[in-house]
Amino acid sequence: MKVAIVGLGLIGGSIAIDLQAASFATELCGVETNAEHVQQARSRGFCDSIAPLAEALAGADLVILCLPVDSLLNVLPSVLDQVSAQTTVTDMGSTKSALCERLKNHPRRQQYVAAHPMAGTEYSGPLAAKRGLFQNRTTVICESELSGALHLRRVDALFDALGLRKVFMSAKDHDLHAAYISHLSHISSFVLANTVLDKEKDVSAIFDLAGGGFESTVRLAKSSPEMWNPIFAQNRDNILQALNAYLEHLTVFRDSLVAQKAPATYALMKNANSISRVLQTLSLKSAGSSTAKPGRPS
Amino acid sequence: MKVAIVGLGLIGGSIAIDLQAASFATELCGVETNAEHVQQARSRGFCDSIAPLAEALAGADLVILCLPVDSLLNVLPSVLDQVSAQTTVTDMGSTKSALCERLKNHPRRQQYVAAHPMAGTEYSGPLAAKRGLFQNRTTVICESELSGALHLRRVDALFDALGLRKVFMSAKDHDLHAAYISHLSHISSFVLANTVLDKEKDVSAIFDLAGGGFESTVRLAKSSPEMWNPIFAQNRDNILQALNAYLEHLTVFRDSLVAQKAPATYALMKNANSISRVLQTLSLKSAGSSTAKPGRPS
Repeated sequence: MKVAIVGLGLIGGSIAIDLQAASFATELCGVETNAEHVQQARSRGFCDSIAPLAEALAGADLVILCLPVDSLLNVLPSVLDQVSAQTTVTDMGSTKSALCERLKNHPRRQQYVAAHPMAGTEYSGPLAAKRGLFQNRTTVICESELSGALHLRRVDALFDALGLRKVFMSAKDHDLHAAYISHLSHISSFVLANTVLDKEKDVSAIFDLAGGGFESTVRLAKSSPEMWNPIFAQNRDNILQALNAYLEHLTVFRDSLVAQKAPATYALMKNANSISRVLQTLSLKSAGSSTAKPGRPS
Repeated sequence: MKVAIVGLGLIGGSIAIDLQAASFATELCGVETNAEHVQQARSRGFCDSIAPLAEALAGADLVILCLPVDSLLNVLPSVLDQVSAQTTVTDMGSTKSALCERLKNHPRRQQYVAAHPMAGTEYSGPLAAKRGLFQNRTTVICESELSGALHLRRVDALFDALGLRKVFMSAKDHDLHAAYISHLSHISSFVLANTVLDKEKDVSAIFDLAGGGFESTVRLAKSSPEMWNPIFAQNRDNILQALNAYLEHLTVFRDSLVAQKAPATYALMKNANSISRVLQTLSLKSAGSSTAKPGRPS
């Protein structure tokens, strides 16, 4: 099977590393337009070859697009136009509604599988790629009823090779949940960093005090604006809903402090503690080695 | 040197483990009022003995109070009253102004060294204690000009044994910085958890989507309300300043999304990226093995 990976940054590079380790492809061809990234991808040996897009697509059985979500809106329809009638095309973008909407009337829609692996780090580019990035994480597959059986099977095999569990939902549901569970975390980190940096203008001593708690809470503030701005644009309504909910909850917490209502503040923290359930569920799943059974969802 | 550790939770237990490993004390005596914690501390072998407070204080050269900050307000003056005229008393509390204010006219004020090691985890209790918790972290020492030379030297040796770097500042400055760099991170996590849990009432699928980013941002939401409520009460004014600043920065970010001003959103994220400086500084310091030179600050 010839596999083409378009975009060799954190996600594309990490996929390449895992597919090589799994001997998944008979030919693994990469596409990358950033000259510095080409050099880095070559030095890390991500693919058998790095080629122009048309060359990579020629004869490809599976094309994996790992591009920012604004690029995907243009590149994905064009790739579908160029590939053969048997080629499977999938993407790893963090928003799904705009893309699925764009493709819904494409004559080759059934060759496309819309996906989003919930994995990543705050770093980007080929040097950030790492083996096992997706292991025991979850990938969402959207609108699978619009994808052909052959193409779902191929993407299924891809995700098995990467160690990803699969969940199925509508693009609309995906974007709403992603806003709360992923996009909001990024905003809370970006803004926490800005709040502290704003204060730090006056006092550099603050650097000395930053401990492990601050470090983990603010980690995502290092994320790439180039990647996140298009996500915010495409998922704006859901993100605003989540952000407004966050502002409301923050105001409730603030007001309990203002009113010195210790029992109310206590209750808010006690409620927050139950997030342990989510994190334990996550860690139990990560500890397990098996992924969900492949197959067409009901 | 006889050392007494009062409170054998995460902080007291971790200190005990490190002091044992460093053979710091000739006698290490613990005090703990929670019966379950006594059992856990015994089973982990934290101290040579666990004794009632009066017995632990008798003949102690150094007393380390590792209690919630509301308990410290009562226990610390009473401990100073009970110890000998040569005993050093220090505390590891997360707020310093209220405590220093309470003790400023105590006849034995010079036997007290006010400290706060910027280290911890989201867990609490003896079972959460771990070796090396303080290694290459920073401790703040407040109002050192009010502490006697002997007592500063002893606490200095203690922090060297724990691997803590020392910085010196006023209690007022400490509490302001701690509000931004530590207390605000906890609130942002508590509230992020509440926002997601509130949404999750409708949709349990959200659990499947939580990835590494969410996990790290929300980690502190597991922290103990019993410990944090007194911190919020004692450092309320500074925390409200920090929280209001955070709310303002969040509103600026939200408004840039509402207005679809992508360059403004981009600039906010780019600014946040410079938090890397802080985190790199931290990680460079953590990589180094030497602590700041001991000695009385200027």
